[in-house]
Amino acid sequence: MDATEYVTKLATASRRAAAALAQAAGELRDGALRACAAAIRAARADLQAANAKDLARADEFGLTGAMVDRLRLTDKVVEGMAAAMEQVAAQTDPVGRTIAAYNRPDGLRIEKRRVPIGVIGIIYESRPNVTAEAAALCIKSANAVILRGGKEAMNSNLAVASAIREAVRGAGLPADAVAVIDTPDRAVVTALCKAEGLIDLLIPRGGEGLIRAVVEAATVPVIKHYTGNCHVYVHADADLQMAERIVINAKCQRPGICNAAETLLIDRAVAEEFLPRMAAKLVEAGVELRGCQRSRKLVEGMKPATDADWRTEYLELILAVRVVDGLDEAVHHINTYGSGHTDAIVTRSIAAADAFVARVDSASVMVNASTRLADGGVYGLGAEVGISTDKLHARGPMGAEDLTTYKWIVTGRGHLRD
Amino acid sequence: MDATEYVTKLATASRRAAAALAQAAGELRDGALRACAAAIRAARADLQAANAKDLARADEFGLTGAMVDRLRLTDKVVEGMAAAMEQVAAQTDPVGRTIAAYNRPDGLRIEKRRVPIGVIGIIYESRPNVTAEAAALCIKSANAVILRGGKEAMNSNLAVASAIREAVRGAGLPADAVAVIDTPDRAVVTALCKAEGLIDLLIPRGGEGLIRAVVEAATVPVIKHYTGNCHVYVHADADLQMAERIVINAKCQRPGICNAAETLLIDRAVAEEFLPRMAAKLVEAGVELRGCQRSRKLVEGMKPATDADWRTEYLELILAVRVVDGLDEAVHHINTYGSGHTDAIVTRSIAAADAFVARVDSASVMVNASTRLADGGVYGLGAEVGISTDKLHARGPMGAEDLTTYKWIVTGRGHLRD
Repeated sequence: MDATEYVTKLATASRRAAAALAQAAGELRDGALRACAAAIRAARADLQAANAKDLARADEFGLTGAMVDRLRLTDKVVEGMAAAMEQVAAQTDPVGRTIAAYNRPDGLRIEKRRVPIGVIGIIYESRPNVTAEAAALCIKSANAVILRGGKEAMNSNLAVASAIREAVRGAGLPADAVAVIDTPDRAVVTALCKAEGLIDLLIPRGGEGLIRAVVEAATVPVIKHYTGNCHVYVHADADLQMAERIVINAKCQRPGICNAAETLLIDRAVAEEFLPRMAAKLVEAGVELRGCQRSRKLVEGMKPATDADWRTEYLELILAVRVVDGLDEAVHHINTYGSGHTDAIVTRSIAAADAFVARVDSASVMVNASTRLADGGVYGLGAEVGISTDKLHARGPMGAEDLTTYKWIVTGRGHLRD
Repeated sequence: MDATEYVTKLATASRRAAAALAQAAGELRDGALRACAAAIRAARADLQAANAKDLARADEFGLTGAMVDRLRLTDKVVEGMAAAMEQVAAQTDPVGRTIAAYNRPDGLRIEKRRVPIGVIGIIYESRPNVTAEAAALCIKSANAVILRGGKEAMNSNLAVASAIREAVRGAGLPADAVAVIDTPDRAVVTALCKAEGLIDLLIPRGGEGLIRAVVEAATVPVIKHYTGNCHVYVHADADLQMAERIVINAKCQRPGICNAAETLLIDRAVAEEFLPRMAAKLVEAGVELRGCQRSRKLVEGMKPATDADWRTEYLELILAVRVVDGLDEAVHHINTYGSGHTDAIVTRSIAAADAFVARVDSASVMVNASTRLADGGVYGLGAEVGISTDKLHARGPMGAEDLTTYKWIVTGRGHLRD
């Protein structure tokens, strides 16, 4: 069977499942999610056995230590998948919610009601817990999902999906609500991208290369998650102790994640007082600093930052540093070099916070909080299906509600157009 | 200047204007809209003089009578443009509205707030009043707009835009908030499609050929308005007199518009009573009928309908007719052959209406109302920037709010990620 045939067959079954899901009451979908949680807990030994097969081939696939860590289904990760299923089950049902409803002067009733999108394809790398979280959010929002994980996690993903499919079927919904691509053939990804009319939305999660490849091939709509080139701006009126803690957290707490800070902007009014001591702490934490001319005058031994540094998402313990003349320059720097993901200001000034929030064109704007907090879990979405750097449809962390669209329902009593 | 240079220069000015608009208070934007309305009224003679130049060349461009009608800036059309500006000004400001706001257990404050999208490109054909309506919705939603109308309306569009730009400037906002492409060069459309990072959204309005060409060329996100293959389903429990009025209105009131009905589905329980008399009225109204086998047994002289008929958006006085076994078959027909635009049921049964609304996968689902009512004005949006047949971001008639996105604003007191 060639890739297009394979995807057509799979997605046709998904469309049937999507139609059934769209008619299923919320309690049926929530029941399925709780059954999935129980099934994942019960299948722990099986999941770990399948995971061991993937781990045994990690060298063959050239996985780094960090990648192996993310691949490993520890007891804690398995419990985390089950708990995420339960958390998502406990959320308010996004489907069927009325967004707006009103009568027009002539008595025509207009309602805008949330409905599922249909069939959603998720293309991702490495972490097998994405299989469970993505399935949870799609079941919650009454969408069928087609999951295509990396070949390095194939056994783990199939084992997780098998437990979920059984539980979904047992709860009275079609197992095809959750489908997993069971071949590493890359032509299948291309076929997913071209499955217009069968797949309603693709969400690629992973490296920029994967995402660009999907966007270029896709005729199906795609929600993208490009780079997170995040900034912390320490304003002239910042609580400098708070600023220190936020900068350390934003850069060091988990530097490989997209919401880690990559550039520190410091108001010149506080640079002399703040920067030397901040730099010392960062260097102590193992961070390499690359600074503008003004910051290099304040800190010895700092490498020079180039234009490329302002644009780079390091994803490691490197931080670019720039002294700016004030909020205008900070906003201009962020809107010029940033990626519109997450940017923070540290300030005690209402006026500065308001101006920063209004003018920085990013999905998440943090005031006196670490950029690392830009996350679906932190925002209370239960889980996230990705962090959109697009502006259309959904922006920033995406939860179950972001996997819905709406329908206009117009009710008349024989109303005609004049 | 080549097309890419031309678009880069224009869109760079638009981006600057967008940044200013995003900071402008609602009353400033509404004031600009009212000033535009006054300017359009004051410029009526100039607009009509420019329009006369376009009308004089209508033959040269091969415009049909209907197209010439749509091109003509009558007194009524000019007043309509001014009135639309005022109606949009009177609407609630969509910008700055809080979509959701809550505190997390640790005291972190999360807010989702509506913000403009940025720079929006609108590519359209013929009707110069689109110039005013699109500009109104973009100014209202604090977006800069780049308008590219058809060459057949170039003089009219430039005259309308010139009045608007002057008024916008006079009201204290940048004239570049509203830009018009002043060359018929088609390479400019391609350059608009490729202006990633400069243009945030493209909305093509016009024939399917135009829209497909934009979608294929575009790297910028596009919201599409494909065909309207709309249905009226007369249920077994319909008020048959109401059904007659709705069918006549949906087919005949303005057959060339996307929300006109193209297929009539009749429940077999009422076919014998309803169809002969409905067919007679339709034929009397000049409609050509193309029927399935069962309907042709009930009405003499009806042409046979083929599979192609079920798929066709006629946009003229032709109606496909099919007798169906019940609601299941009606829904299946609509979801198989329809375009997800607008579909109607006529029924007195709550159960049938609910099932139809839940299962028909279309942007607008009408109950006991004509499909012709699927319209931004009818829905109370003041004006519409198009009717989306996409499922993402916006679906159905799009107003000012649909030209916004949102931002997450996260406020802490030194909150860090654990």
